[in-house]
Amino acid sequence: MKNKKMWGGRFSKKTNPLVEEFTKSIHYDHKIAAYDVMATQIHVLILEKSGYLTHNESLKFGKELSKIHKSIVQNKFNWSKDCEDVHTNIQNLLEKKLGTLVSKLQTARSRNEQVAIATRLYCKDNLVNLLNPKLERLITVISHLAKKNKHLIIPGFTHLQHAQPVYLKDYLLSYAAMFGRDKTRLDNISQNLQITMGAGSLAGTPISVTHYKTILNKINKGLNKYGRSFDVTANSLDAVSDRDFVIEIINALSIIAMHLSRLAEDLILWSTKEFGFIEIDDAYCTGSSLMPQKKNPDVLELIRGYTGRLYGNLISTLTMMKGLPLTYNRDMQLDKEPLFNSFEIVMDELKVMMGLIQTLKFREKKIAEHLKDESLYATDLVYSLVNKNVPFKEAHTIVGRLIRHSFDRNVLIKEMPDKELKSFSPKFSKDEIIRLFNPKVSVESKKSIKRD
Amino acid sequence: MKNKKMWGGRFSKKTNPLVEEFTKSIHYDHKIAAYDVMATQIHVLILEKSGYLTHNESLKFGKELSKIHKSIVQNKFNWSKDCEDVHTNIQNLLEKKLGTLVSKLQTARSRNEQVAIATRLYCKDNLVNLLNPKLERLITVISHLAKKNKHLIIPGFTHLQHAQPVYLKDYLLSYAAMFGRDKTRLDNISQNLQITMGAGSLAGTPISVTHYKTILNKINKGLNKYGRSFDVTANSLDAVSDRDFVIEIINALSIIAMHLSRLAEDLILWSTKEFGFIEIDDAYCTGSSLMPQKKNPDVLELIRGYTGRLYGNLISTLTMMKGLPLTYNRDMQLDKEPLFNSFEIVMDELKVMMGLIQTLKFREKKIAEHLKDESLYATDLVYSLVNKNVPFKEAHTIVGRLIRHSFDRNVLIKEMPDKELKSFSPKFSKDEIIRLFNPKVSVESKKSIKRD
Amino acid sequence: MKNKKMWGGRFSKKTNPLVEEFTKSIHYDHKIAAYDVMATQIHVLILEKSGYLTHNESLKFGKELSKIHKSIVQNKFNWSKDCEDVHTNIQNLLEKKLGTLVSKLQTARSRNEQVAIATRLYCKDNLVNLLNPKLERLITVISHLAKKNKHLIIPGFTHLQHAQPVYLKDYLLSYAAMFGRDKTRLDNISQNLQITMGAGSLAGTPISVTHYKTILNKINKGLNKYGRSFDVTANSLDAVSDRDFVIEIINALSIIAMHLSRLAEDLILWSTKEFGFIEIDDAYCTGSSLMPQKKNPDVLELIRGYTGRLYGNLISTLTMMKGLPLTYNRDMQLDKEPLFNSFEIVMDELKVMMGLIQTLKFREKKIAEHLKDESLYATDLVYSLVNKNVPFKEAHTIVGRLIRHSFDRNVLIKEMPDKELKSFSPKFSKDEIIRLFNPKVSVESKKSIKRD
Amino acid sequence: MKNKKMWGGRFSKKTNPLVEEFTKSIHYDHKIAAYDVMATQIHVLILEKSGYLTHNESLKFGKELSKIHKSIVQNKFNWSKDCEDVHTNIQNLLEKKLGTLVSKLQTARSRNEQVAIATRLYCKDNLVNLLNPKLERLITVISHLAKKNKHLIIPGFTHLQHAQPVYLKDYLLSYAAMFGRDKTRLDNISQNLQITMGAGSLAGTPISVTHYKTILNKINKGLNKYGRSFDVTANSLDAVSDRDFVIEIINALSIIAMHLSRLAEDLILWSTKEFGFIEIDDAYCTGSSLMPQKKNPDVLELIRGYTGRLYGNLISTLTMMKGLPLTYNRDMQLDKEPLFNSFEIVMDELKVMMGLIQTLKFREKKIAEHLKDESLYATDLVYSLVNKNVPFKEAHTIVGRLIRHSFDRNVLIKEMPDKELKSFSPKFSKDEIIRLFNPKVSVESKKSIKRD
Repeated sequence: MKNKKMWGGRFSKKTNPLVEEFTKSIHYDHKIAAYDVMATQIHVLILEKSGYLTHNESLKFGKELSKIHKSIVQNKFNWSKDCEDVHTNIQNLLEKKLGTLVSKLQTARSRNEQVAIATRLYCKDNLVNLLNPKLERLITVISHLAKKNKHLIIPGFTHLQHAQPVYLKDYLLSYAAMFGRDKTRLDNISQNLQITMGAGSLAGTPISVTHYKTILNKINKGLNKYGRSFDVTANSLDAVSDRDFVIEIINALSIIAMHLSRLAEDLILWSTKEFGFIEIDDAYCTGSSLMPQKKNPDVLELIRGYTGRLYGNLISTLTMMKGLPLTYNRDMQLDKEPLFNSFEIVMDELKVMMGLIQTLKFREKKIAEHLKDESLYATDLVYSLVNKNVPFKEAHTIVGRLIRHSFDRNVLIKEMPDKELKSFSPKFSKDEIIRLFNPKVSVESKKSIKRD
Repeated sequence: MKNKKMWGGRFSKKTNPLVEEFTKSIHYDHKIAAYDVMATQIHVLILEKSGYLTHNESLKFGKELSKIHKSIVQNKFNWSKDCEDVHTNIQNLLEKKLGTLVSKLQTARSRNEQVAIATRLYCKDNLVNLLNPKLERLITVISHLAKKNKHLIIPGFTHLQHAQPVYLKDYLLSYAAMFGRDKTRLDNISQNLQITMGAGSLAGTPISVTHYKTILNKINKGLNKYGRSFDVTANSLDAVSDRDFVIEIINALSIIAMHLSRLAEDLILWSTKEFGFIEIDDAYCTGSSLMPQKKNPDVLELIRGYTGRLYGNLISTLTMMKGLPLTYNRDMQLDKEPLFNSFEIVMDELKVMMGLIQTLKFREKKIAEHLKDESLYATDLVYSLVNKNVPFKEAHTIVGRLIRHSFDRNVLIKEMPDKELKSFSPKFSKDEIIRLFNPKVSVESKKSIKRD
Repeated sequence: MKNKKMWGGRFSKKTNPLVEEFTKSIHYDHKIAAYDVMATQIHVLILEKSGYLTHNESLKFGKELSKIHKSIVQNKFNWSKDCEDVHTNIQNLLEKKLGTLVSKLQTARSRNEQVAIATRLYCKDNLVNLLNPKLERLITVISHLAKKNKHLIIPGFTHLQHAQPVYLKDYLLSYAAMFGRDKTRLDNISQNLQITMGAGSLAGTPISVTHYKTILNKINKGLNKYGRSFDVTANSLDAVSDRDFVIEIINALSIIAMHLSRLAEDLILWSTKEFGFIEIDDAYCTGSSLMPQKKNPDVLELIRGYTGRLYGNLISTLTMMKGLPLTYNRDMQLDKEPLFNSFEIVMDELKVMMGLIQTLKFREKKIAEHLKDESLYATDLVYSLVNKNVPFKEAHTIVGRLIRHSFDRNVLIKEMPDKELKSFSPKFSKDEIIRLFNPKVSVESKKSIKRD
Repeated sequence: MKNKKMWGGRFSKKTNPLVEEFTKSIHYDHKIAAYDVMATQIHVLILEKSGYLTHNESLKFGKELSKIHKSIVQNKFNWSKDCEDVHTNIQNLLEKKLGTLVSKLQTARSRNEQVAIATRLYCKDNLVNLLNPKLERLITVISHLAKKNKHLIIPGFTHLQHAQPVYLKDYLLSYAAMFGRDKTRLDNISQNLQITMGAGSLAGTPISVTHYKTILNKINKGLNKYGRSFDVTANSLDAVSDRDFVIEIINALSIIAMHLSRLAEDLILWSTKEFGFIEIDDAYCTGSSLMPQKKNPDVLELIRGYTGRLYGNLISTLTMMKGLPLTYNRDMQLDKEPLFNSFEIVMDELKVMMGLIQTLKFREKKIAEHLKDESLYATDLVYSLVNKNVPFKEAHTIVGRLIRHSFDRNVLIKEMPDKELKSFSPKFSKDEIIRLFNPKVSVESKKSIKRD
């Protein structure tokens, strides 16, 4: 297909090929092609309504656009890399089919607005139909694993040091809570994301608000279920200048990536020889070309590493928008690669994380050994003194000394004679200590957590 | 006041002074002191309810905490830089007043949780009571300026090139629209921000859910109007590990800063000798120590420059959280400086921008001169042809050629003889061109924008 | 080509296809293929030297590797997307040609080390042979433009306000100075960039230092002119863990991009209707599909916008490396896309900027009009008083008042009667003012700048 | 001290107090005060040389400036927060002492230039005299620890999985290598950092190059040993616009922080109950207010967390400079806080890390236990087969299978009967396996690493 530009009369010289190459967007904006066609279909109806197209012309456009939409969705559209962008590609194909009729299509709209609309549709669709269901599914998978191992207790960590025993399920569900917040965040963004028409290049179009409303209301009726809805532009200068939604989305995706990086880190630690809490399924590990014993958690490492990519994409779009005068500037074209890339990475991460979680095994014996560490029960010992009217801070100091004594002498607390114990506090008793140094007793003594 | 640590029994050596200096947070966490005391007041009630404190003890605490709260709010609390943090400072003062009673206070809570609660209260208060009213006020100020100049038309720009004439009010209101989105974003964050108690260090506390609920429900009744509300922790591991709200807020503040940077850029451009659209009030400019003629828009430049600071703060907290294993890690202490700094910068920016906008003058004569540029009306010329049944793209090409011709010959279109015009299209007429090359006619012909 | 992994014996299950997709790098690491083959060629010689390959085997490998290298350089290698990476691709082809002999190739090296070597070679080549010559050429082009317009004077700006007249050449050469610093920075990086062999996975290899040295010294002799040189690894753990060079390079590229963004901004401003200092060649501009008059500086806007992409890439790699334990972790694989992308963007930017600069025209008449602004000469007026023994600060105040008076009364200083002038300072004289308010006199009075 | 501005004649209104507050820099720029005075001392000599000051006037200035310099260095200067910046503070004090004479001081220089000079001097001093010696000391401390434990072998990790045994000293020295690269990087920056005079606001000054050279050459003679040296500005527009050095330095500091974060991460892992490789000295740990047993590596966590702060500072300055037109813009004032903060954080990190390293203890028994993991010797097993003419990849597969078999059957390889071993390869022998599964044998078999 020959590359016919959508502009040119004012120019006395051809564009330099380097410039064509440099300004091109076809290698990535084809990802919003289906959304662009959808918006064009509506635009055609508006042109008809306002008298810029006859009913017959509108039908012709409608027919060809449907075909194009279908071929795009079926991945059959042959994108010419010679055309500068997806719009030029589509327009050139329309011209081949409809001849000069196509020259009416650009009436009352600009590419800036077109791109803004298609990008917003892409975002809405990805948020509502792809990302949120995936997040929900991950939450389900995590909750399922929590349920399956509901009696399993593990050492809880702060500062990566043994703190107190916790239920594995509570540990896992804390990640479900994070992804739950992520879902709410995406829902808010999606609800706030407005898709408007009628901005033109920046100053509006000659078509009346009423005509826009008539058509868009009709369209909205059919679309509600997809979470999209169109409106007439409220402020045309803002409509073509705004990229808030791109930044907001990449930020929300960055937080998801951050959550995933923490989960990945925990699982990487737990799969070390030293921790040994879990066994990652062979199908989710890779090996080494040099060391035959290696079974590496590459998937988790990549998830951790991709966090940087998300943060980078966020900085990329934030920097791009900094200090840009109104209204549209070409810089804004560079929002799409970071946006698409961010969606794609997070989608992939969610998919592999889900599979990995589903096949994860816990090594109960090894975990049980770690739970023998007496320091995990130090706080329980403090509370046993507090319950015997020792003020908290005093109890804290007593237990701290006892622990140090145990380390220095290299003797377990529960193996100390009663007398030795009582030298720290007369309120200690060997029997109680043996009762307290028990994971189940410890976790069940925390009454502030509602349990079903 | 002597520095007494809140821990120590287990340690056989004193902390190295370098380490004390390095881990200290008192130089910034005093900013959340009032919120911390508020949370401690509630904690005391919960300790009483659950029997860890007698009613009398609770009253003593209550009395001293009220005094401390007052002295903090009145900026009279004397923060000792020798204590590691705000909590130690307050506890040491309590000890001076209440003696050993204070040693009961740390029962059933950890500093990690305390900090998380105080920081969340700080955020909620700043969002609801400081930032959002300020944003609302800025929107009002902008709208007022728009109203005051409602008939003024200016050249509209895309790519910083003359595009089409627009109403100044539409231009200004596009910024009001941005700040309106910012408000919605902050509202969403504020609504999603939960303040919970009962997490302990990570595993919960020995106090029952019911006791928490009884007290917190009572507290909530009095607090509703401040937009704060407390709940029992749903997942204790998540409660002490989560910094999503910090990131979300700094991101929202970054977007506000970005919007302000665009407004600043536009005003910097408009205040140049070359544009000359505006006169910034002397009270909002500064001079040069070398060049006596200088009247520089420093305020706007700093607003533009501070954008980087916000982005930096965002990256700072995102990076901090990347790959952190559960639950609390000391890294998270570093969330506060970027958070506070971001709030403070944006608050200051909003204040000075408001003052600058309120005193801004438009130089109508100079603007009128710029509106003489005929290229601003090229699109109107296209539509005049389209309305005479010339297909859009053809009309676009014809007008493009006419413009080029006008540039090449250095002759204005409206000064071309009718014959010359008609050589481009027989449908051109000199009369119509004179009618069209008029700012008011141009802006009013855009019917897609609803105007009151 | 079938995908045969380079590992597997230890695994009881196949890798999940999602995981294969997720961990793959072939879609970008083919860019370092030629460098990888080069390193393999050397590896073969080392294997021969140390007795792991016979001379005959070494020759066979050498022959096939040469062919592969040639096909890669000629862009004829058919990369199979089924193989996980470039190394597997090459090994599979070798196996097809050499059969089981290939199974000796992986002796004494790991993929981690291979990738590190190939990436370093890629960087060195790009720095020395591509980027630095391009920067040098841009400096030449700028200097040439400066020379061509050496008598042209323009208003100099601080705070985007008229400051003092400056030679355009000095303005342009300040950009040459920036790019000169960039070149030095890249030179330093390139000199510090070491390419080493012998690290194995992390612990070294069974081949002796002497064997490495013998081969590498031989290789270095032939390579000196390409700025590459090999050495035996000094610390094998560091060799496979280090990505400093990637970060350093992206940082240096970010600074180049920042410089380009400033130049772009200046040119965007200068090409506005309002400034009108320059005319960008039609071949370096693009138009609008809606507004026929538009001639937009898209190239410059994209250059400005891409800055964000570079900063993002920098954050991406910095974040990736944060807190990674030694030695190699799979996260590090994610260094390549940001690195390649950064090189490619900056290379493209340099190319189009060069072309744009070469075809740039200055509009001397318009510039001359701007130079009539009297405030540009205010500092000269100050110095004229200082030379008559008025202390600097006093002179500064006097001229400041005179300027304000001129603005308030809307009368030019050089049109004020001598008496009016003398009311500000008896040392003013109309004749001198007329002499001073002259661009050439002004710029030539600055004696601190060495001029040829 | 009263706040007298350094400008004002042109203004008809006072600056709004909000604006004064917003544009102020005195709360941080006092950190460059001593450098500023030093530059002013030189400026006075230049003014004398060029006749703008008499010898007597110069002496008076010199005397007062020396006193001021002394009081600053001794931390006795009383900075008035009412003055906008450090320059105004100093000038006001000078005025108090010298009366109207001070009004000559601002001749031939601008604050922009002053700030640029003082900031560069600050950087040079910090790089050469503070940071680099500290880095060198850290390298020494690490090397000393390496030497002290030169026979200690630890498990080496890739992907945080057991890879091969390595000498602890090699592990530690890999960090010394990183910090060595950091030192080279800082040396390069320092060497490239030029300190120039004579730029004025942007256009140069009326003082001749020769006068500058005479004075600066004289000054340089006395300064060489401090690594500072002055020159006349080569391009005055560049001199006041350039902040490359700030970005470069923060980037280099970010890489140092990244290296420290990796070391911190390794030490955090090693100090867990699970790894147990090290014992951090009590003086370098902190406790918990709730859990008495806790001994947390807070120092290391903060070092890891501060990495974000450095990256944020980098983004802050990069963003600030993006797209700024020439020459000086007030945005650039915002370079100082991130710069100072970055220096201070890294200096503090180096200090505490040094102390922590010096007091670090290795738990040899625990490490020895980890070294029993047979998978650490898998590669040695491969090489033993390769040395018996089994091709590498075949050997790799055989050993992989053997390892899997060992895991599946839960039996150690060295406890397998010879027959069982030989079923994997007839070339295996029990004796050899026992010989190979030995840390010392393993590390010593890696001949590619030069050892002293």
